[in-house]
Amino acid sequence: MIGAGNLATHLCRTLKDSGHEIIQVYSRTEKSAYELSNRINVPYTTDLESIISSDLAIIAVNDDCIHNIEKHIDFPKVHTSGTKPMSILNGEEIGVFYPLQTFNKNIEIKFNSIPICIEASNTELMQSLTVLAQSISSKVVKLNSDQRQRLHLAAVISCNFSNLLYQLSEEICQEEDIPFDILQPLIFETAKKIQKTSPSMAQTGPAKRGDSETIEKHIKLLESNIEKEKIYKLLTESIKKRK
Amino acid sequence: MIGAGNLATHLCRTLKDSGHEIIQVYSRTEKSAYELSNRINVPYTTDLESIISSDLAIIAVNDDCIHNIEKHIDFPKVHTSGTKPMSILNGEEIGVFYPLQTFNKNIEIKFNSIPICIEASNTELMQSLTVLAQSISSKVVKLNSDQRQRLHLAAVISCNFSNLLYQLSEEICQEEDIPFDILQPLIFETAKKIQKTSPSMAQTGPAKRGDSETIEKHIKLLESNIEKEKIYKLLTESIKKRK
Repeated sequence: MIGAGNLATHLCRTLKDSGHEIIQVYSRTEKSAYELSNRINVPYTTDLESIISSDLAIIAVNDDCIHNIEKHIDFPKVHTSGTKPMSILNGEEIGVFYPLQTFNKNIEIKFNSIPICIEASNTELMQSLTVLAQSISSKVVKLNSDQRQRLHLAAVISCNFSNLLYQLSEEICQEEDIPFDILQPLIFETAKKIQKTSPSMAQTGPAKRGDSETIEKHIKLLESNIEKEKIYKLLTESIKKRK
Repeated sequence: MIGAGNLATHLCRTLKDSGHEIIQVYSRTEKSAYELSNRINVPYTTDLESIISSDLAIIAVNDDCIHNIEKHIDFPKVHTSGTKPMSILNGEEIGVFYPLQTFNKNIEIKFNSIPICIEASNTELMQSLTVLAQSISSKVVKLNSDQRQRLHLAAVISCNFSNLLYQLSEEICQEEDIPFDILQPLIFETAKKIQKTSPSMAQTGPAKRGDSETIEKHIKLLESNIEKEKIYKLLTESIKKRK
C-alpha cells in the first residue's frame, strides 16, 4: 500500500478483512506510516528505494504525488485517482482502482456498497483487478480514463455543489433564527428519492410548477445578497428549461 | 379537511390513525372528493356552502385557491402553505399548519419524522395546534410568516436545486454511457453527512481544496455546454469564497 491517508487506511482494513495480504506500507511521513502499519500489523517504510516488490502496488496518495512515486515502482501498479488518466503511470502493467466515495480516517465505512471503477492496460491485470474489487465491493464498473474523469465531474456537481446549497440554505435559516435541522428530513428524502426515480421525474417546487409569484418573492428575499440571488436565478432558469 | 390532494390524503390518514375525528372532506373535484372520502370513510361535499362547522378546518389546497375557499369558512381554520402568510386568512381564529415535506399520494410516508411548522392568531389556537401537531410529529416548530417564507426559500435551494444538480450530473453521465447509479451512494452519503455535521464542515472536492488543475479540466469538459459551464463556475467560486 503506497500512502497512509484516509483512502489507504480504509482500503488496508477492508482488504485485510477480505483475506488479502498486505506486505508493506509506504508513506512519506513517518508518523502516518507508523500509525497505519501499527493498525494493520504490517511493516512500513518511508524510503521510496525500499519498496518491496509484490503482486500489486496500490498508489493511494494525493493526485500530485502520484508521478514522483510511481517512477520507483517497477511491478504491477494502480492509482486510485478519479481525475488522473491511467497513462500517468509508466510500465507494462498499469491500471486504476478508483472507489467513488469520500473517506474520513475515523469514520467506519462499509466498502461493500461503494462502487469501484477499474481500468487496466491488459486483460490479465483487468482480470486480477476485477477479482480484487469484487472481493470488497458489490458494484464494480469498468471505465476508461475519459469516462472516469467525466464521472468525477458529475460527482463534483451532484455532491460538492449540493453540499454548497445545503450551506447556503443553512445561512438563510440562520439569518432569521430558524433551526437548520428542520430541513434535514427533506434534504435526506430528496437524495433518497433519486435512488428509485430519475432526477428529471423527481423534480418539484416553484420553478418546476412555473409558479412565478413565489419565484419573485424569493428573489426579493435575496435582494441584499448578490451571490445567492445570482445562483437562485441561474438554477431556477435551468429547471424551467427542463420542464 | 378542505382539499383532497397529496397532502390532504396523507394528513387525513395520519390524523385518523392518531385518533382524531375527521367529519367531512371538501374538494372542488367530485372524483378526488369521492376517492378520499371513500378511503377514510367520511362524508364529502363539493359545495363550498355545505361545509360543516367543526373545531378546525385544515385548508390543504393549492396556494392560489386558499383565498377563494377560506371566505366560506367561519370557524377556526389553518392553511398548509409554506409561502402564503397567515394573514391571507380572514377571521379571529386563524393559523398555519405547514408540514415540511413533499408528498406523493401513493407513497406511504411516516409523518412522525416530518417537521410541522405552526403559527396562530391567538394563544388558545396555538395551544390546540401544538397538541394536534405533536400527536402526529415529533418535530413541531413555531414559526411566524416571515420565517416560514424564508424556510421555504431555503428548502427550494437545498432540495429543488440539489435535485437539479443530480439531473445535470445524470446528463453528463449519459453523454459517455456511464451508468448514473454509480453516483447514487455518494449522493446519498452527502445528504446523510449533514444530518450530523454542518455543511460548512462537510465540504470536500477540488474547489474546497483549491485544486485549480482539476477545476480547469472540468471547465474544459463543459466547454460545449454554456449553461453547465456557467453553473460550474458560479458554484465553484461560491465554495472558494467560503474556504
